[in-house]
Amino acid sequence: MAAMSTEWLDAIKWDRDGLVPAIAQEASSGKVLMVAWMNREALAETARTSKAVYWSRSRRKLWRKGEESGHEQVVRDIRLDCDSDVVLLSVEQKGGIACHTGRQHCFFQQLQGDRWVTVEPVIKPASEIYGKK
Amino acid sequence: MAAMSTEWLDAIKWDRDGLVPAIAQEASSGKVLMVAWMNREALAETARTSKAVYWSRSRRKLWRKGEESGHEQVVRDIRLDCDSDVVLLSVEQKGGIACHTGRQHCFFQQLQGDRWVTVEPVIKPASEIYGKK
Repeated sequence: MAAMSTEWLDAIKWDRDGLVPAIAQEASSGKVLMVAWMNREALAETARTSKAVYWSRSRRKLWRKGEESGHEQVVRDIRLDCDSDVVLLSVEQKGGIACHTGRQHCFFQQLQGDRWVTVEPVIKPASEIYGKK
Repeated sequence: MAAMSTEWLDAIKWDRDGLVPAIAQEASSGKVLMVAWMNREALAETARTSKAVYWSRSRRKLWRKGEESGHEQVVRDIRLDCDSDVVLLSVEQKGGIACHTGRQHCFFQQLQGDRWVTVEPVIKPASEIYGKK
């Protein structure tokens, strides 16, 4: 197989840290599951493998989503916005849980008046998700 | 009316520039329309007025979405993610156009093999949207 061009990666406006925000949206429900960051290597691997790979800013390493939790994201579509600085993934969320808190997605705090209220249930406690290893 | 607490703004993990990314998702369709940035003032005004207000990094000023285009976003719901560093708005998009290119949304570049391909039509040319003033 011929090597793929990497011009599509050069087209992206990486920030000063070499990252772009990436949104994972569930293909079946349209739900916005999470936002994480990608560097060039993470996005290249995501495109190559059709599994979401992010860059963990706290751990400073590639984060293959689901590597610990089993909650992989199979990538169906990759989009780039008009400014070429945000990526949108359409994904199939394995296990139905995207958030490390054990919730379906990460946007579970809703502004009600002047308070953030948790409005989504924990499907599986984090101790059960991460406690097996 | 008693002054509202601003603790909910303190709960947000603003980045080193005092900003957070904000995703606008269309309430009716679930479509991810755009991502922009908010500072504290932008988010406070968004919550107070139920109209999306962002911080324009290029113009370095508040950007009341639709102020030039008429394409306002009426905000139905404001969410915060598990790390408290990304905001998700559920909006009603006035005019059916969120993108400054005249497309319904900003994520119109799709990765096909090793190329970004524009897969969404221009609904109204930018010259018509912005040319009136």
